[in-house]
Amino acid sequence: VYAPPIQELVDELGRLPGIGPKSAQRIAFHILKSPAEDVSRLANVIGSAKVRVTWCRHCFNFAEAVAGAEGEAQCEICANPRRDPSVLCVVEEPRHVVAIEKSGWFKGRYHVLMGALSPIDGVFAEQLRIKELLTRIETEGVTEVILCTDPDQEGSATAMYLRDRLKELPQKVKVTQIPVGLPVGSEIEFADELTLARALEDRREVS
Amino acid sequence: VYAPPIQELVDELGRLPGIGPKSAQRIAFHILKSPAEDVSRLANVIGSAKVRVTWCRHCFNFAEAVAGAEGEAQCEICANPRRDPSVLCVVEEPRHVVAIEKSGWFKGRYHVLMGALSPIDGVFAEQLRIKELLTRIETEGVTEVILCTDPDQEGSATAMYLRDRLKELPQKVKVTQIPVGLPVGSEIEFADELTLARALEDRREVS
Repeated sequence: VYAPPIQELVDELGRLPGIGPKSAQRIAFHILKSPAEDVSRLANVIGSAKVRVTWCRHCFNFAEAVAGAEGEAQCEICANPRRDPSVLCVVEEPRHVVAIEKSGWFKGRYHVLMGALSPIDGVFAEQLRIKELLTRIETEGVTEVILCTDPDQEGSATAMYLRDRLKELPQKVKVTQIPVGLPVGSEIEFADELTLARALEDRREVS
Repeated sequence: VYAPPIQELVDELGRLPGIGPKSAQRIAFHILKSPAEDVSRLANVIGSAKVRVTWCRHCFNFAEAVAGAEGEAQCEICANPRRDPSVLCVVEEPRHVVAIEKSGWFKGRYHVLMGALSPIDGVFAEQLRIKELLTRIETEGVTEVILCTDPDQEGSATAMYLRDRLKELPQKVKVTQIPVGLPVGSEIEFADELTLARALEDRREVS
């Protein structure tokens, strides 16, 4: 139905998460009707994103890349001296950092695992930033770890695994989890801000 | 909450139709986690779309641009000698061509108005491809014009306006409209294919 360059555009857009065929077409036609400068700004921002954004060397959140200093990037939260380094909130993905930051309650720092355990998908503990988490706890004076993984199967398995690993650490660290105030099987990303703040406040010690 | 390059990416994506702030963030983070080659392919396809796609010189549908032959592009439907040139289906937007093509019933050609009358938005008859439509009818042996604008306020006003203009033509042309089998106020784009095919078949002569 489409000419080849339109088909390619629809196909590429349709690969984005949450974009079905109808949305992909709608966006493609919007792009084709937009002023050329708007379209090239969009293309440039997408094309340069991978160069301009990298991982925070501390917590593996997204961070702005520093030109000429690879591996030196740190996110705004880790760079903020007013954030409490003794409390680490462990999340699966950078988008969960955003969700918790929006709730406004948490004043500590984060550690992004970059996924959750899912053996069926080939994600084992080695694929996650767990070794780096343990090193941070041992070296940064961490006294509390809040396990804030998704309340779904993979997230719960990851939290359970982390509880066991944290027990083995030489120093004593308080391990807490937010209660399942969110519906089981849902995603932290879609919880409302008040629920998240409340859940963080009501966290209970699990070991 | 975001580093500047992430904020720019989220902002640009959030300007696309149907993409709210949560979707924009989801897509942005997906892009940041995707392999660099996938991201540059997406950026290139978007960035080159405006150059590779232009308007069909006959019907104003989207058409693949011909290098070195500006203004010569024609869409695949107009280029197809098996499409009946005596029946013109008049639609507001290229996406409506796609919807009707998918219904599989229509074997004639199209004329895309590139909008609908909406004086409040500054869209008058001169902004639409109405003059070109009248010229086509006079010169291409058109015997039937199907007015297939959206069944909403602007689309109905456009159809009514076109009925009057078509009456003034020197030659006799049959003017038909699809019945409102779709809910009033909805968009043709979102109708299912069977409904559209049925509605096209049941079209009635209105003048």
